[in-house]
Amino acid sequence: MFLKNYWYIAAMAHEVGRAPLQRWLLNEPVVLYRTEAGRAVALLDICPHRSYALSKGELVGDNLRCTYHGLVFGPDGRCVKIPGQVNIPPRCKATSFPLVERWKWLWIWMGDPALADESLLPDMHWNEHPDWTTTGGYFELKCHYQLLVDNLMDLSHEATVHPGTIGNLAVAETPCRTEVAGEHVRTVRFMENCPPPPLFVKLRGFAENIDRTQDINFYPPSHIIIKSKAVPHGSDPERTNMALEYRVLNGITPATERTTHHFWAVPRSFAHEDAITKAFHDGSVRTFMEDIGVLEGQQARIDHQGGKPRWIDVNADSGGVAARRIVARLLAAEQGAA
Amino acid sequence: MFLKNYWYIAAMAHEVGRAPLQRWLLNEPVVLYRTEAGRAVALLDICPHRSYALSKGELVGDNLRCTYHGLVFGPDGRCVKIPGQVNIPPRCKATSFPLVERWKWLWIWMGDPALADESLLPDMHWNEHPDWTTTGGYFELKCHYQLLVDNLMDLSHEATVHPGTIGNLAVAETPCRTEVAGEHVRTVRFMENCPPPPLFVKLRGFAENIDRTQDINFYPPSHIIIKSKAVPHGSDPERTNMALEYRVLNGITPATERTTHHFWAVPRSFAHEDAITKAFHDGSVRTFMEDIGVLEGQQARIDHQGGKPRWIDVNADSGGVAARRIVARLLAAEQGAA
Amino acid sequence: MFLKNYWYIAAMAHEVGRAPLQRWLLNEPVVLYRTEAGRAVALLDICPHRSYALSKGELVGDNLRCTYHGLVFGPDGRCVKIPGQVNIPPRCKATSFPLVERWKWLWIWMGDPALADESLLPDMHWNEHPDWTTTGGYFELKCHYQLLVDNLMDLSHEATVHPGTIGNLAVAETPCRTEVAGEHVRTVRFMENCPPPPLFVKLRGFAENIDRTQDINFYPPSHIIIKSKAVPHGSDPERTNMALEYRVLNGITPATERTTHHFWAVPRSFAHEDAITKAFHDGSVRTFMEDIGVLEGQQARIDHQGGKPRWIDVNADSGGVAARRIVARLLAAEQGAA
Repeated sequence: MFLKNYWYIAAMAHEVGRAPLQRWLLNEPVVLYRTEAGRAVALLDICPHRSYALSKGELVGDNLRCTYHGLVFGPDGRCVKIPGQVNIPPRCKATSFPLVERWKWLWIWMGDPALADESLLPDMHWNEHPDWTTTGGYFELKCHYQLLVDNLMDLSHEATVHPGTIGNLAVAETPCRTEVAGEHVRTVRFMENCPPPPLFVKLRGFAENIDRTQDINFYPPSHIIIKSKAVPHGSDPERTNMALEYRVLNGITPATERTTHHFWAVPRSFAHEDAITKAFHDGSVRTFMEDIGVLEGQQARIDHQGGKPRWIDVNADSGGVAARRIVARLLAAEQGAA
Repeated sequence: MFLKNYWYIAAMAHEVGRAPLQRWLLNEPVVLYRTEAGRAVALLDICPHRSYALSKGELVGDNLRCTYHGLVFGPDGRCVKIPGQVNIPPRCKATSFPLVERWKWLWIWMGDPALADESLLPDMHWNEHPDWTTTGGYFELKCHYQLLVDNLMDLSHEATVHPGTIGNLAVAETPCRTEVAGEHVRTVRFMENCPPPPLFVKLRGFAENIDRTQDINFYPPSHIIIKSKAVPHGSDPERTNMALEYRVLNGITPATERTTHHFWAVPRSFAHEDAITKAFHDGSVRTFMEDIGVLEGQQARIDHQGGKPRWIDVNADSGGVAARRIVARLLAAEQGAA
Repeated sequence: MFLKNYWYIAAMAHEVGRAPLQRWLLNEPVVLYRTEAGRAVALLDICPHRSYALSKGELVGDNLRCTYHGLVFGPDGRCVKIPGQVNIPPRCKATSFPLVERWKWLWIWMGDPALADESLLPDMHWNEHPDWTTTGGYFELKCHYQLLVDNLMDLSHEATVHPGTIGNLAVAETPCRTEVAGEHVRTVRFMENCPPPPLFVKLRGFAENIDRTQDINFYPPSHIIIKSKAVPHGSDPERTNMALEYRVLNGITPATERTTHHFWAVPRSFAHEDAITKAFHDGSVRTFMEDIGVLEGQQARIDHQGGKPRWIDVNADSGGVAARRIVARLLAAEQGAA
């Protein structure tokens, strides 16, 4: 069960073009394509006639023709052609979903279409802004999406899982502080006078200790924005020109109960040259792939425990636990309303 | 759940010899072999002693010895030997099934043996008749058998799925007519003055438009005989020597709820030379393999929809819908009687 | 469901060292390792914090650190370190299991630790005794453990499954005698004046007929000790120096409901040279691999039959049936007590 009346990232904008793309989202198969004018469109990937995958069909102008019996559907799901007959029953309609293109991603709304309001998009403007240089990508994980939320809300694991890139003992040993405001969870960790982790040295050339901040922000259902900043120890974070400042933008979209899409980007406000972009990209990929190994192993154990193990919480779990509580409350409300 | 008190094709006759052959039929494992005199035999492929597969055993004369503990069973299932003991309990019996060899196939009856009446075999005599030249084969599909029945009862899909062999727009755009008489469903489509599809040109050398007839006949549980005829447009179908006339004989046997055997043959009444036989065979294989891709994809979506999606019917579905209704009625009757 | 308050073999002693070893036992994941002093330790392979596999962690002295968030646990399961906090909640504890090293194996007790009594270990002293030379190994089978118990309690299958090593018709055709005493089942078969099977000829050079004894002993939950002896026909088994005498020690441990560990050894009292050890080893491996093929096929059929087929018993099943009855009775008692 997933929250429905929220925007989720369905795809990176550049993935979708004039060839139908199939993707599982919130436990439904969806087909994505663009009209001749370039507008991105999302339909349930099931022909209402005999359940064949529309994504196996072909585009006829702005419409999609099912390959099995040749029925044709428009971007709004309306059937515009049934071979061999004139009358088209109004019930013969594919399901369409609101889809918005913003900040290099396509955002889908799979709940009540009447509630789809673009102002509800989480602010990820850094991914498309002249002052920020970005790179990003996409992974599919074989685990429940909340394991990835937990992972990003508690970065203490960087010390053991990511010692080769962004982690060291300072992250695990420095307590964090969590605030909850409505549906927003914020977890902040300030590591003063700590050694820079390997990737920070590579990206910014730190030779001495640093002051490092992680400012993690959760917005339901599963969007996480991490504001990361490091400066040479003792310097003024607002004035130094030696700051390493970046965002980690995470669009986490359930594919099924056991598979998850992770759309990520790492916009930064310094050193805009390509070599640094490549270093950011490679370091992020390595880091996220380390997480995938951990999360998929964790899922296997949780499945063995019947899906709902009783866990022991530690202090560092405050952000993840708060995020889970908010989702559980919102889910109960959505289910109750439905 | 499948209809039990009907004949189903278990194998092509040439598949079964003196080496035990294992095959799943109606959700049961079956072992097939021939006696020394050449009679084909079918037993449930489970030793009643400790459940080992009899098909892994070896033939001792007309009997089959289980490899695990050496028990020996006759063609009627009777145990004729238990190592180390003299007395054979009468309960120690393998299950045997009536099996008939007819028209190059072996037909099995897995319901009440007392009801197994050879006169109930569907007439497929064209597959072994001096006036007809035939070729055929066998596929295993990963889908419920009724999807294949639907597919063959509604040939409008030829336009989109088989444009390289037997399909073109005329098939999709020409309405069909369906008649139901008892357990028999007949769907006929007459396409007057239409272009010949590619395989027809290859088989018969048509240079101009044709008059084409599809006469599709369903007999429960899942036998479909298609009578296909094409003649040069305007000529008398009964008198022209330019007719392309053939049957498509389909023996559809459920293996499990999600796998299906398709035994097929395409006897024809013209051009008996081997080159045309090969062209018929290759064209049929290509066509059926195109269907397999579609049907297995359709099954995946149906499974996602919980197995029982509510479909929108169109006019071309009349034959398939009628066949499903008959099977549902007969199944309810069989279940009620049991 | 498995008997819990019994010793099971968890591993061969030499398998476990300073690298954590993961193994499924009685449907639970277990991690095994040795302390710096060499003592073998077993923990449930699930971190109580967030369910990650402890076996993916690393040893820190005698303790095991979880790789995900860095919590550290001692050999008794006690948490000794949580990064970033001082207080360790007493509930934060991994599950530990009693583990005993004996006769080259590690024995685990997964029931009530208070009942773990080493005097309950089944006597397998032949595997580590100066008068006996041994070899052994380990297989994992894809079947329920009781199929392997059945297999070893009824050796009549040697005639059909193992004709290349230890079986011939004499085994199948000679009746056996079964005695039950409390939880102990004993099945004895005495084959007088029979041809030696191929492996016996190879191991002992028999040129004429032999007198052969199989003395099979079952102890719950699933330990089987076979005392095997063959002598030249007519000679005194206690006085001849031509006896072929060995034990087959079987530690059978359920991994899951459908997978089983088979720890085996074949100590012998004659011909202690390495060439004979190798012949014993190779002959045993070939024989057990023949059984694996049979048992995994048998399991597939049983699964199709819903797991509980009604079998026809024959005389040779007396030992296996008695063993199953005892286990069923003990299991009911354990479940009732719990």
